[in-house]
Amino acid sequence: MSGGGVGRVKTQRVVLFDRDAPLELESGVSLAPVQVAYETYGSLDADGANAVLVCHALTGDAHAAGHHGNPSRRGWWDTIIGPGRPLDTDRFFIICPNLLGGCSGTTGPSSVDPATGRAYGLGFPLLTVRDLVAVHRALLSHLGITHVHAAIGGSLGGMQALQWALDHPGEVERAVMICASARLSAQNIAFTAVTRAAILSDPDFQDGNYLDGPSRPARGLSLARKVGHITYLSEESMRRKFDRSRRDGAFAPMSMASDFEVEHYLDHQGESFVERFDALSYLYLTRLMDYFEPFSGDRPDLAGASTRFVAISFDSDWRFGSEHSRAIVAELERCAAKARHVEVASPWGHDSFLLDLEEYHRVVAEALGEDVRARAPAPMGRR
Amino acid sequence: MSGGGVGRVKTQRVVLFDRDAPLELESGVSLAPVQVAYETYGSLDADGANAVLVCHALTGDAHAAGHHGNPSRRGWWDTIIGPGRPLDTDRFFIICPNLLGGCSGTTGPSSVDPATGRAYGLGFPLLTVRDLVAVHRALLSHLGITHVHAAIGGSLGGMQALQWALDHPGEVERAVMICASARLSAQNIAFTAVTRAAILSDPDFQDGNYLDGPSRPARGLSLARKVGHITYLSEESMRRKFDRSRRDGAFAPMSMASDFEVEHYLDHQGESFVERFDALSYLYLTRLMDYFEPFSGDRPDLAGASTRFVAISFDSDWRFGSEHSRAIVAELERCAAKARHVEVASPWGHDSFLLDLEEYHRVVAEALGEDVRARAPAPMGRR
Repeated sequence: MSGGGVGRVKTQRVVLFDRDAPLELESGVSLAPVQVAYETYGSLDADGANAVLVCHALTGDAHAAGHHGNPSRRGWWDTIIGPGRPLDTDRFFIICPNLLGGCSGTTGPSSVDPATGRAYGLGFPLLTVRDLVAVHRALLSHLGITHVHAAIGGSLGGMQALQWALDHPGEVERAVMICASARLSAQNIAFTAVTRAAILSDPDFQDGNYLDGPSRPARGLSLARKVGHITYLSEESMRRKFDRSRRDGAFAPMSMASDFEVEHYLDHQGESFVERFDALSYLYLTRLMDYFEPFSGDRPDLAGASTRFVAISFDSDWRFGSEHSRAIVAELERCAAKARHVEVASPWGHDSFLLDLEEYHRVVAEALGEDVRARAPAPMGRR
Repeated sequence: MSGGGVGRVKTQRVVLFDRDAPLELESGVSLAPVQVAYETYGSLDADGANAVLVCHALTGDAHAAGHHGNPSRRGWWDTIIGPGRPLDTDRFFIICPNLLGGCSGTTGPSSVDPATGRAYGLGFPLLTVRDLVAVHRALLSHLGITHVHAAIGGSLGGMQALQWALDHPGEVERAVMICASARLSAQNIAFTAVTRAAILSDPDFQDGNYLDGPSRPARGLSLARKVGHITYLSEESMRRKFDRSRRDGAFAPMSMASDFEVEHYLDHQGESFVERFDALSYLYLTRLMDYFEPFSGDRPDLAGASTRFVAISFDSDWRFGSEHSRAIVAELERCAAKARHVEVASPWGHDSFLLDLEEYHRVVAEALGEDVRARAPAPMGRR
């Protein structure tokens, strides 16, 4: 095992649906063209049986591991993907696509609508998790993959793994859903609602027609990110990181401007987010999470399916805490599926799924079938 | 006991500080004039010993009980104040002033600065809880009251009762602090920070100079209120009230607009709030809560004080939950004060302090010295 992880990688792009064969969305709307940006790590076995699909969360992208030229700026899940890491690139062929509706190379509301020659804006159709999965399946088909060793993701990523395995259990050997939810609570929806209200009420949002103009709804998107971030960290996590520290010290005069370190942190999160993310994608992807409720209709019978479902949660997560994972597993058991829940202790809240936490990584490796090939112990100092 | 509560009341106004004798703020800034709006219920005993000061919370006002002409529109704490109620107007003379920095008759950032003839805006000085208490004390002095049977309030209201009793224990026989905090957590501050960011980033805020113009930062203030409201309700409370109900039913098409009942509820809260509250007051009053930390300096010795401190919390409150009340009592005990904490079971979160909850009202009555005069049982049907 190398401590260096995945090396230099490149995001690839492919058009999977076009006017002749558009993507038929769950809503009945047809969408074309649909381009997908994706990255891959590792090599596909000759029998094509070692593929692992990584589904990213709300604000992720296809760049999950490695770097694009600067080794110090690495993909969002680089600590978990690589040679000898839980998503072991010596063993698996890992595919990470940017989601439908996203803003990092895959078709979304900021893409050009061929019917008008301008960005879709709010004219983009509303999406479901099933639509995201349909595009994943098309990408895998394009890559010659008919079924995967595992589909895995955190938060919204876990929702995709779940929906796919529910609808097509024969295609997914292991569905690993990390701090996911199959039914947002009223409080969850309330939070996404205020983040959308922040964007929609920013005058620069211009009813979604800002993409052809000079301004972006940066204030609204920044505010949305700040609210989101509060829910990604646990209260304990914020206390450990910031407590009541003030940038200019405890004896500085009071100020209406940012003063407490936690305020500066949120400012930074908001500012850096607007540099890399699009407000319309934020609206569309939060909204499909609100509506996601895969167990609300007829229950699939998974008694004969080989899919193993693992729901992993973190005890300090208050966005999609353990009760969400327990609910997923309870529903899966009602479908006669092979499902289990593992709660990992971590003080870092929802964000834990992005962190290099030993016990968490052990649980993920196990969920991917650690038993199949033993991992070498991690060298001292990497964690 | 009458089921009718306090009858028709009128908000009174008095100027307590003027240019010749300005209010000296803790920051060293002088403020004049300072007008205070207040209401009173009940009668002051001849010995002046039955006064109870009610301190309101962030968005409250002087109109705590009774009505202003329409008996169906009653004060914000009407269920707890009245003949035979825990704040028994047959027994107590109850005073409720609008806070310094507020926007309902007491001087605040939307008041006219005599130096400029225009609204203060962000030129208004930053305040501390001690400043709010200084104005309360001046009002009581104006009313001929030298000490009170009790000072009581919820949330920011409890902070005032606490600060007053710490600084002047001889003036406060009982300090009743309901779901208060003596030290906001990083998460608490993060939430107030995003509500302020919502206001400050609204173009209609115009650096606080909107008061002489035609527009108000309604979008920002509405958004602030929505975020605040999420923290006032518990997750359980939102689940019971709304769960995932959709206004147009479970089979209506998805929508980017408000659809879930919890969204409509937040919209309503935001819209009605901007009709009655000022964005600048919101900024100033949230900010003084962030800085409030009465036990951070030298510890007062309260061994000889007769003041009885009672901290009341609600088990589902996640804004200022029981850990905040326990911390207050722990600090008070280090000051050798007579302090106790009572946790009340309620599923309704922080908002519980405004609700008509039997056990809560019993605890408040007891904190006010229920033992002194037994209450008649509540008639059936009132609760």
